Amino acid sequence: MKTTLPPKGMRDFLPKEKEVREYVMNQIREVYRSSGFQEIETSFIENIENLTGGDGGENTKLIFKILKRGEKLDLDASSTEDDLADLGLRFDLTLPLVRFYSNNKNELPTIFKALQMGPVFRAERPGKGRFSTFAQCDIDIIGDESNLAEVEIILTIAKALKNLGIEKFKIKLNDRRILKALVMGAGFLEYEFSDIAITLDKFDKIGRAGVISELESKAYDKVKIEDLMKITDELGEKGLSAVETLSPEGYKNLNEIFEVVDVLKEGYDIVFDHTLVRGMGYYTSTIFEIEHADLGYSIAGGGRYDNMVASMIGIDVPAVGFSIGFERIVDLLMEEGKIDQGHVKIAMIYSEKDALVDVMRSAMKLREEYTAVSVYKAKKKLGKQLAQLQKFGYKGFIIYGEELNVEFFE
Amino acid sequence: MKTTLPPKGMRDFLPKEKEVREYVMNQIREVYRSSGFQEIETSFIENIENLTGGDGGENTKLIFKILKRGEKLDLDASSTEDDLADLGLRFDLTLPLVRFYSNNKNELPTIFKALQMGPVFRAERPGKGRFSTFAQCDIDIIGDESNLAEVEIILTIAKALKNLGIEKFKIKLNDRRILKALVMGAGFLEYEFSDIAITLDKFDKIGRAGVISELESKAYDKVKIEDLMKITDELGEKGLSAVETLSPEGYKNLNEIFEVVDVLKEGYDIVFDHTLVRGMGYYTSTIFEIEHADLGYSIAGGGRYDNMVASMIGIDVPAVGFSIGFERIVDLLMEEGKIDQGHVKIAMIYSEKDALVDVMRSAMKLREEYTAVSVYKAKKKLGKQLAQLQKFGYKGFIIYGEELNVEFFE
Repeated sequence: MKTTLPPKGMRDFLPKEKEVREYVMNQIREVYRSSGFQEIETSFIENIENLTGGDGGENTKLIFKILKRGEKLDLDASSTEDDLADLGLRFDLTLPLVRFYSNNKNELPTIFKALQMGPVFRAERPGKGRFSTFAQCDIDIIGDESNLAEVEIILTIAKALKNLGIEKFKIKLNDRRILKALVMGAGFLEYEFSDIAITLDKFDKIGRAGVISELESKAYDKVKIEDLMKITDELGEKGLSAVETLSPEGYKNLNEIFEVVDVLKEGYDIVFDHTLVRGMGYYTSTIFEIEHADLGYSIAGGGRYDNMVASMIGIDVPAVGFSIGFERIVDLLMEEGKIDQGHVKIAMIYSEKDALVDVMRSAMKLREEYTAVSVYKAKKKLGKQLAQLQKFGYKGFIIYGEELNVEFFE
Repeated sequence: MKTTLPPKGMRDFLPKEKEVREYVMNQIREVYRSSGFQEIETSFIENIENLTGGDGGENTKLIFKILKRGEKLDLDASSTEDDLADLGLRFDLTLPLVRFYSNNKNELPTIFKALQMGPVFRAERPGKGRFSTFAQCDIDIIGDESNLAEVEIILTIAKALKNLGIEKFKIKLNDRRILKALVMGAGFLEYEFSDIAITLDKFDKIGRAGVISELESKAYDKVKIEDLMKITDELGEKGLSAVETLSPEGYKNLNEIFEVVDVLKEGYDIVFDHTLVRGMGYYTSTIFEIEHADLGYSIAGGGRYDNMVASMIGIDVPAVGFSIGFERIVDLLMEEGKIDQGHVKIAMIYSEKDALVDVMRSAMKLREEYTAVSVYKAKKKLGKQLAQLQKFGYKGFIIYGEELNVEFFE
């Protein structure tokens, strides 16, 4: 049955929403570009094997799969989803970026600073404020093993946020190697790391006691859990200095990043957070997340993923990336009503007796002066017509005649 | 198997391509907005019934269908594609616009001037220069039954093309009512109109003789075909004036449009073309197409589709739209190499001995002055490093030190 609604979990955007979205995208794009990032576009559709075969974690369960077409689709011989689908919609921008880089390496600079903005798709059960598609704004530096890359990315993202008028945020920093040393230091085995990290990740939500009881419910050794908490407490009290012996590499890395960003930051905070985990399996060392100070939720996140290109083409290429949660930024700015682009939209009203050619000639001229000029034939109820124009953002109107005077709405 | 290529028929865009695409989009967007069109965004994904149930013509055979998810997918009970897929990717921007308008009518002005830019997807057999996804740039006016709408749309599209440096083009105009009168005037029956129109549409490609032989091969009456050709020849010789008695409504409509556009056009041509058909089944009166004068192919097309909203919500709402074939415009401009945005990208080179914090502070300052500043650590082979930077569009470089002098490449 035909419906006027978009499919469940999908969205349309009205002019006032779209205007804010475009504005935010352009503001972010401008800052990214100014730091030397170059915009690329990757396909929205990927081969299904590329989507399912990587480190996509939970996201691989949320793929919108596309039915094979033509003679490739053999319904009788198909017994699984894999037989039916050969393509899928991308669920993030990182996986397509790695494929893109692997494919175009020879056409790109040795150190490639990539900028990507666009929609991603995840077949999550939609709910209030949760959609199956949303935009991401990513920057990544591929080919730089030094943490100049981290510094550049952090400073650039922070500048983009400040540029949008978002002042109160906190950058949280950790290193996967520190996390690993923490878990192994408590006596856990390497293969247990990922599972324990999943629980540690919930520290802000369920607290220390919650973490302990979840680890206990997973039947881990009580002594090891106690040791893990002891080290965790120490890191919590002493901060980064407590990491120096636990993970010298992680310590050196974060310390160098702090040395630069602490000096150059403007207004925002950057802190070491030993409970920061970040979900994606592919991160190898630095991980970061930006939290809005008042709202307490994450508005950006990323990290270093030095093994992903190698897993595709067998060549070691270091990489680090950061993704802004575009939808949250837009929601934030829409709520605050902060955006006024100073557009002056004018309506020109003409009547039956006017020659359309003269009316249009005047409109074309006025368009050089005002942001937008739209031509409408006068309705019988002019007052009502003008009221509607004002409601839809027009700043004033002109009644077509010999003199083209703009009358601005009050 | 994982691959580094995008799926067949899909595309990635390198920085230099993406830069042109963004530039073209923004140039078009600016002109559209200036004429009072408001940008909206519609879902890339539609309910499958909406895609298949309309007047999409051939496009409904080219839908990328999305597999149902979770418990909704019952492989055992599925015997057709319809059982397996509940969603599909949009194949144009018009159908989603009509759904959007129908859904949001009360939030939109009585006369709604819509601007939409974005990708559409058609599962065509990909070939050289033919892809399964491409961008469209549409403007539509919904709610205006007068041909001010046509005039506004034609002048706006023409201005957008000229603004991009495309000077040589020809706007071809026809009216479906004229076409119908032509076919019925030769004695054909109403239900035969669409099929005959399909053949007439090939006039530029197969010529007069080709049209006759195709109609004969379709077993139409030879006398009627002869009559059809006679009227066609007359229209070809006498132009619009020959239409006055054949289709008074069509004549009046086109005449009024010519009266305005002929006077206000700048450089381009606008002509009556009685062989212009336009494929889509939903057009009701005015149809138009823009042809590049040298290349001889169409770069934009559209028409009036007064019945589409009614077919969705049962309320008569007039509508007219024009779509720019974005990919052809981009190809054209890439070939001509016409685009220079005057960006000044600078590289800043530092060495091991420099403090990263000072280097970054300088870079941040320089970013206020140049379009983009990117920081790189000096390589052993500095000459080779600089040559690569130049190759990738950097205009000059700075060796970090006490004085930050830009050395421009020659």
